[in-house]
Amino acid sequence: MVKRQINWALVDQLRNKNPIVLTLANLVTIDKVADAVSAIGASPIMSIEVNEASEMVELADAITINLGTISQQQLTQIKKVLHKANYRKPLVLDPVAVGAVSSRLKIAQNLLKEFHFDVIRGNASEIAALIGDVDNKSHGIDAGAVTNQVHIAELCARRFHAIVILTGETDIITDGQVLYKNPFTAEMLTINVGSGDILSSLVAAFLGTTTNTWDACIVATVLMSAAGVLANRYSAGLGSWQVQFFDQLSIMDANSLLDFLNESEEDYLD
Amino acid sequence: MVKRQINWALVDQLRNKNPIVLTLANLVTIDKVADAVSAIGASPIMSIEVNEASEMVELADAITINLGTISQQQLTQIKKVLHKANYRKPLVLDPVAVGAVSSRLKIAQNLLKEFHFDVIRGNASEIAALIGDVDNKSHGIDAGAVTNQVHIAELCARRFHAIVILTGETDIITDGQVLYKNPFTAEMLTINVGSGDILSSLVAAFLGTTTNTWDACIVATVLMSAAGVLANRYSAGLGSWQVQFFDQLSIMDANSLLDFLNESEEDYLD
Amino acid sequence: MVKRQINWALVDQLRNKNPIVLTLANLVTIDKVADAVSAIGASPIMSIEVNEASEMVELADAITINLGTISQQQLTQIKKVLHKANYRKPLVLDPVAVGAVSSRLKIAQNLLKEFHFDVIRGNASEIAALIGDVDNKSHGIDAGAVTNQVHIAELCARRFHAIVILTGETDIITDGQVLYKNPFTAEMLTINVGSGDILSSLVAAFLGTTTNTWDACIVATVLMSAAGVLANRYSAGLGSWQVQFFDQLSIMDANSLLDFLNESEEDYLD
Repeated sequence: MVKRQINWALVDQLRNKNPIVLTLANLVTIDKVADAVSAIGASPIMSIEVNEASEMVELADAITINLGTISQQQLTQIKKVLHKANYRKPLVLDPVAVGAVSSRLKIAQNLLKEFHFDVIRGNASEIAALIGDVDNKSHGIDAGAVTNQVHIAELCARRFHAIVILTGETDIITDGQVLYKNPFTAEMLTINVGSGDILSSLVAAFLGTTTNTWDACIVATVLMSAAGVLANRYSAGLGSWQVQFFDQLSIMDANSLLDFLNESEEDYLD
Repeated sequence: MVKRQINWALVDQLRNKNPIVLTLANLVTIDKVADAVSAIGASPIMSIEVNEASEMVELADAITINLGTISQQQLTQIKKVLHKANYRKPLVLDPVAVGAVSSRLKIAQNLLKEFHFDVIRGNASEIAALIGDVDNKSHGIDAGAVTNQVHIAELCARRFHAIVILTGETDIITDGQVLYKNPFTAEMLTINVGSGDILSSLVAAFLGTTTNTWDACIVATVLMSAAGVLANRYSAGLGSWQVQFFDQLSIMDANSLLDFLNESEEDYLD
Repeated sequence: MVKRQINWALVDQLRNKNPIVLTLANLVTIDKVADAVSAIGASPIMSIEVNEASEMVELADAITINLGTISQQQLTQIKKVLHKANYRKPLVLDPVAVGAVSSRLKIAQNLLKEFHFDVIRGNASEIAALIGDVDNKSHGIDAGAVTNQVHIAELCARRFHAIVILTGETDIITDGQVLYKNPFTAEMLTINVGSGDILSSLVAAFLGTTTNTWDACIVATVLMSAAGVLANRYSAGLGSWQVQFFDQLSIMDANSLLDFLNESEEDYLD
């Protein structure tokens, strides 16, 4: 029944506001992220030039820092953006592959020491790595079998005073006290490269729409997975799933999202 | 009736010639631009290495300079390409986001001082910024509500001795004297990230096919928007629109483009 | 009858093993390559940071070096990766555009002198350039009309002690002694930008699955072209072909690949 307390109308409010979302992006998925942000009604901006950092922050309603193809050069830009944006603009961190690559983990941990992120979005291995849990290895950039995911997410949220979105078979959203579980999932969300990157920037789009970070995280996550589940219905594989996923992102409104939730309720009861 | 004076056969001539189009590209949309150039029958080449500049210019039949993810490093490469190509190869400038980011505006203005571009393709805010019109603010990388677009496009064309393609609800093409208005538009051309980038490189493909710059600009712009409008017919959202848009680009010939124009004439009469 | 001697079950074995494939990628096609690698059941990792080289090699089951957007910076990273990986991990070279750009040809030739690649995958002009055959010019990044392709591929294979996959209307696979011809082809594999890049990384995925390099090359190449041919069946152009191509990659198993081969046998008999 949790869903009745969430402000699902944010889906429509976002389209009305058309917030500007700056993503310091993963070059592997930069095009999908831009299309997804645009599809839900926000305006994506991207930049790789450190000299544009200040102006980009001024333009942005919210910012996502994605470590997917982090380089020394991009790190310089990221820090300049964060110095300017810290506590002034909503910030999302996507710590891609910190569960697999120790140099990235160090970068992420240093960023988390120096700056405050409103939201951290990662898979179980990434979130485990951030809190120094070395027992939960990843498989490449993919999550390994991490047990006790709720506990790990809560620890991470408390440690960094952030809302943590731990995505997986069940998405876990927590501020360290309150817990929200999103049961909607689709296998293709895993096979499609960039699903996590997309969600991290969709979260920023909602943070650029409301000051209610909690609702922003939940609405973004449920919207994303609803689009993924609905895309499954007529898809034969990765290609047709992607087509319908972007169709869903571009047509979904608060009403159709609520319809999806109401229809799905029975299927997902424990 | 203007359309009868335009050499629409360029669509077929391009496929026969298979011109090589060099794009110094926006990393957000580099894949879509390459696919679109290939789909209409040209051969895309890309490069990010300054040492390849000379050879790339030699290979190219026409060149598009896109500022979408401009960096100091790319600017060095762009200048080397332009020094080699200036007045030797047809050049298109896509001044992405110069309406929003002042450092980009300076870069674009300096390039326009030092080099001659045959065509400038931008949205209303970008074209306005190039001529120092500060009353027409943009919204992020998107155009704001710019009034008097024809006047702005004409001023820009005269100032830089170029044909200006100002894309928007109605596309305005002008050399500062003669005006062509393209009425065909589709909402998805705006939601799809990279539509402007694609057009800028499609224009280069036609410049690599004919020395008639005016016809090249019009045929590229009408072809692009025709594909966008036709893609609307069976699309449910961004994903399926993109599929059909690339289908249309890859199958369109002069005859089907003329059919589209003849069928659409009545719908678009003022 | 050759196909009965090949271990087509590798298609299923790959999905079971989920090998990690590192691609030092072409930025034009990096997203398609990642999706394709993921679609066939492998796990793609990408990196542009030299400091990540060692860790990335450790993670990887196989590695593809793609010169598509080579820069001095990426070359530094590539060399560090190769120093670490040489004779320790299966290596694939994709010498994009060495038939057109002499500085790239030098880079490729130097890499081939210093390191051992298990597989070289290129079009006819690229393979010809590698062995110093200057009579077979390319057209931009596309192959020109190269005669005597089998001879060129065999020379290249012997020179560099590698299996060469020369892709074109007929794909030629040879270790310099034995020859395998793959007759399956689809026009859209040429129009789709990145088909070669995709194959080069799919080959790595199979090299990460088996020590039988010969079978890995053949299964990857036939799987790729089967997906391309099957995608033709219901496609209207580039967009819908891409959708079905990725669908096929994500659903193909050993049985469906064998079915395709059996059904196609008659059509392709000489």
